[in-house]
Amino acid sequence: MAPSKILSLSMLLISIIMVYQANGQLPNQTTMVFYMQDIATGANATVSPVIGIRGKDWSYNTFGSIFVVDDPVMMSPSPTSPIVGRAQGILIASAHDGANVHVVMSIVFTAGSEFSGSTLEIQGISRQREKYRELSVVSGTGKFRFSRGYAALQTTFYDPQTTHSIIRISVTIQT
Amino acid sequence: MAPSKILSLSMLLISIIMVYQANGQLPNQTTMVFYMQDIATGANATVSPVIGIRGKDWSYNTFGSIFVVDDPVMMSPSPTSPIVGRAQGILIASAHDGANVHVVMSIVFTAGSEFSGSTLEIQGISRQREKYRELSVVSGTGKFRFSRGYAALQTTFYDPQTTHSIIRISVTIQT
Amino acid sequence: MAPSKILSLSMLLISIIMVYQANGQLPNQTTMVFYMQDIATGANATVSPVIGIRGKDWSYNTFGSIFVVDDPVMMSPSPTSPIVGRAQGILIASAHDGANVHVVMSIVFTAGSEFSGSTLEIQGISRQREKYRELSVVSGTGKFRFSRGYAALQTTFYDPQTTHSIIRISVTIQT
Repeated sequence: MAPSKILSLSMLLISIIMVYQANGQLPNQTTMVFYMQDIATGANATVSPVIGIRGKDWSYNTFGSIFVVDDPVMMSPSPTSPIVGRAQGILIASAHDGANVHVVMSIVFTAGSEFSGSTLEIQGISRQREKYRELSVVSGTGKFRFSRGYAALQTTFYDPQTTHSIIRISVTIQT
Repeated sequence: MAPSKILSLSMLLISIIMVYQANGQLPNQTTMVFYMQDIATGANATVSPVIGIRGKDWSYNTFGSIFVVDDPVMMSPSPTSPIVGRAQGILIASAHDGANVHVVMSIVFTAGSEFSGSTLEIQGISRQREKYRELSVVSGTGKFRFSRGYAALQTTFYDPQTTHSIIRISVTIQT
Repeated sequence: MAPSKILSLSMLLISIIMVYQANGQLPNQTTMVFYMQDIATGANATVSPVIGIRGKDWSYNTFGSIFVVDDPVMMSPSPTSPIVGRAQGILIASAHDGANVHVVMSIVFTAGSEFSGSTLEIQGISRQREKYRELSVVSGTGKFRFSRGYAALQTTFYDPQTTHSIIRISVTIQT
């Protein structure tokens, strides 16, 4: 093989490697599944109405009602499984027709989690009458710095007696 | 032409194509214009004060006042044009001098829209005394997953009698 | 040197330049440090409780308490240094154990700043019992359009007499 061909082939390899490195900077996508344990009423309530339109019921169906939430987050749906985080933030009944709740919350990973000390930041509308509810992951901290993506919520269990629901949250992020 | 030159030229082409592909991953930018119909008072109010500092007026000019909003969103300024979405969220009078309102809201696209089922997530400050008010698009869902950008708001009509304003919102996003 | 070698070397240079240009589109990272002047009580309070759970104290340690904030932002910790912006938004005591406050706020740069007219949009959890508290920069406007990153908060001064704290905020963003 002539030296010029060898040089040419080396160049081709170098070019390929360099372009692959550039491509290596493209987003990595990951999906993680968690379960939120939510209790709407009673002594163990995880979410509480704080204010609403005067003279009206403060409920998810009543425009203007504002709730604060702190739900345990787990890796499995079982309410007795270890807590790995907490979903903490604010919920706003923001639809005149009662259909939607505006959500701004953090998933705060706690000592039990491999993501301990990190958070996922969530904003979006929960279309509460639909099975599949998609919210945005607007960012994160710690291991989730510079992340963004979306979170799909589905209620997998609801006991009207205790107002206990288990909400599956599937988070897909790019970093 | 010598074979080595042909090889070299082929390599050049391959390199160019690969680099263009890497560039193809760069953000696409889009601008969309919508109109929000906002009514501040009366039976048809789209936005309502919910709470504020005790003993003070609950207004956009009074620090501490919190509003919940659900404005119809349209493709044209005419209030009789079809509704394609709703701007739902929370507004917080967050300036001691009364100048700024902190906005956290979703534009929720509805059945009438090509973006039906998708949302744009917005956060920012509305400098209410200024004509041009820029907020952030922090993310989106559905067709707007992984989006980010900014939203320019301008009040194009205001009737003090009915407190009806038409707000033009020009959204520029990268995906 | 044979012409084919010269051609090959030129191609290598072209490839390197093009790949570097592709890399030039990768995020630029910047860190900026600011200081927030926060007064919790009294006539000069910069932050005020607005609502909370009925019958409970409205404090950062009491789940459900909601505050509105408008803190002056400066380039140096000295409270007499020029104001370059304001940290405006909402704080929500969102932990049953009183540990965390959910923060949604804008840093609104004002006339005194090189970033005048721009904002940084912040969301996250302030783990108020920890020295280092990391929140997310979810986006920005003006010069900070399309930015995202994180903000590290540290209280560098606290006077219990006046409830005045100075909070160092180190913002790292990619654009």
